[in-house]
Amino acid sequence: MSPTRFLRTCTYALPLAAFTVLTATAADLPAKPSAGDLVKQSKPADWRPLDPNNTLYMELPSGRVVIELAPDFAPRSIANLKTLVGEKYFDGLAVLRSQDNYVAQWGDPDAETKPKPLGTAKAKVTAEFTVPMSNDKHFVRQMDFDGYAPQIGHSNGFPVGRDPKTKTTWLAHCYGMVGIGRDNDTDSGNGAELYVVNGHAPRHLDRNVTVIGRVVSGMALLATQPRGGEAMGFYGANEARTPIKSVRLAADVPEAERSNLEVMRSEAPIYKQVIEAQRNRGGPWNKFSPNYVELCNAPIPVRERPAL
Amino acid sequence: MSPTRFLRTCTYALPLAAFTVLTATAADLPAKPSAGDLVKQSKPADWRPLDPNNTLYMELPSGRVVIELAPDFAPRSIANLKTLVGEKYFDGLAVLRSQDNYVAQWGDPDAETKPKPLGTAKAKVTAEFTVPMSNDKHFVRQMDFDGYAPQIGHSNGFPVGRDPKTKTTWLAHCYGMVGIGRDNDTDSGNGAELYVVNGHAPRHLDRNVTVIGRVVSGMALLATQPRGGEAMGFYGANEARTPIKSVRLAADVPEAERSNLEVMRSEAPIYKQVIEAQRNRGGPWNKFSPNYVELCNAPIPVRERPAL
Repeated sequence: MSPTRFLRTCTYALPLAAFTVLTATAADLPAKPSAGDLVKQSKPADWRPLDPNNTLYMELPSGRVVIELAPDFAPRSIANLKTLVGEKYFDGLAVLRSQDNYVAQWGDPDAETKPKPLGTAKAKVTAEFTVPMSNDKHFVRQMDFDGYAPQIGHSNGFPVGRDPKTKTTWLAHCYGMVGIGRDNDTDSGNGAELYVVNGHAPRHLDRNVTVIGRVVSGMALLATQPRGGEAMGFYGANEARTPIKSVRLAADVPEAERSNLEVMRSEAPIYKQVIEAQRNRGGPWNKFSPNYVELCNAPIPVRERPAL
Repeated sequence: MSPTRFLRTCTYALPLAAFTVLTATAADLPAKPSAGDLVKQSKPADWRPLDPNNTLYMELPSGRVVIELAPDFAPRSIANLKTLVGEKYFDGLAVLRSQDNYVAQWGDPDAETKPKPLGTAKAKVTAEFTVPMSNDKHFVRQMDFDGYAPQIGHSNGFPVGRDPKTKTTWLAHCYGMVGIGRDNDTDSGNGAELYVVNGHAPRHLDRNVTVIGRVVSGMALLATQPRGGEAMGFYGANEARTPIKSVRLAADVPEAERSNLEVMRSEAPIYKQVIEAQRNRGGPWNKFSPNYVELCNAPIPVRERPAL
């Protein structure tokens, strides 16, 4: 008996940017490809590189956080955020909050006393909690039940809810998703304060906040922040905040310094197999299979682009 | 516009052991008590203290992790774990693994080369992936749909799935839940290697592992561990592992050194109100209400016992 072997064989969750392969030697449930196997079997055409014009690099002292933007779902908000980023608004700001099993949040530590000017960016942007379904030309439906949305699926790799009655669609608050802080006023957000989900998906925030994208690399740098000691995980005056060195649009960074990531195409047939591999996991470790997977337990694979 | 006020008002997620109150000044959705309000309004009889005979203290250099055991759901495994703890098996062992958005795991770093003797504890314990429904005399059903279990609810505050057809019940892998590592063999776990969920609930592990309880305090100490650099978040030879100073049964710790926590009674009427407060959140910040809450988004409140 070797206790450490347990989770060396039993771990099938898909982390945001790393895959592991199950070696099936004997089967309780039938042998079948795991999500990791499918990634290994995939073809170059199953992947797309990140678009440098819709990718942000947030540089922390501990490394780079890569955020993929979803302009189909928040065109106005993302335009304003790009203005802020282009004018280097975030450089020198900080992570303001880390609440366990909820969100980490970053922005201007002096927002309430001596706020940093927003430059040419707008102070208020009309909310984009949902957008017309016609905005989203890439939706691929996942047939599992969801309590928070009449329909679920992925669009360009982003987890999505939608409602055919209202003909609206929206990004779902899964782990690693990034949204725009706002006050009680629906239109009070502008992108100067952002948060990321660092725990179990707080899906009740869906349709209540403008979501702009997701962290595709470096999420651990935000997830392992010490939790803040004040209410809701805000850092107190005597707690060290992590400074933000800079936030840049990938297109504004020299090519040699860009991250070289690619995202599985959620419209490729292989992604349906990835979902199915998580609905029913095979291999010798699994004894019971739920024949179901939650939207937020089926994140789209991301990886370093293999050398050609 | 004060950006930092956003999540000062919008945060209603229930962290494991801390509550915040929404000050409703104007309502978009009708004003109604939040989960935090309900905690404030609760009566002493709505709470029960932790049972020192079913509470573990894991002492890390950064502080104490408190684990409440659920003997209704894993009597054999918990008996073996108590033997290990009573013989100080865990003292000097380490956190072996931290995988982002999945689990942290602890046990014997030398398990594969020069394993620490298990003392009088058993090396194999018959699995308790599910137990007969008759074991669980405290189940209170939550009527929301769940994709991983025919029925869901809470039992003594633990999130539970059950199946009336097979007349079985089991603990659900929500954030903070603690399970027993095992190899491919169903009965290969013994409690010497434990893991805790540190991200979105990996509910596909339900009915595949013996779950023994949940972290009710100190979860952030495990969640913020640096992620391990090897496959599945195991720490490599050159990475610093967090040592475990000791693990003790609370009953074996002098009363003055015990944590003074209490857990809301899931069978108390107020807990149904707490769930409802999360199914439909009121107050001025919320614009949309899902009329639904996932099992793992409705954790039972835990708090320091108020002074009498």
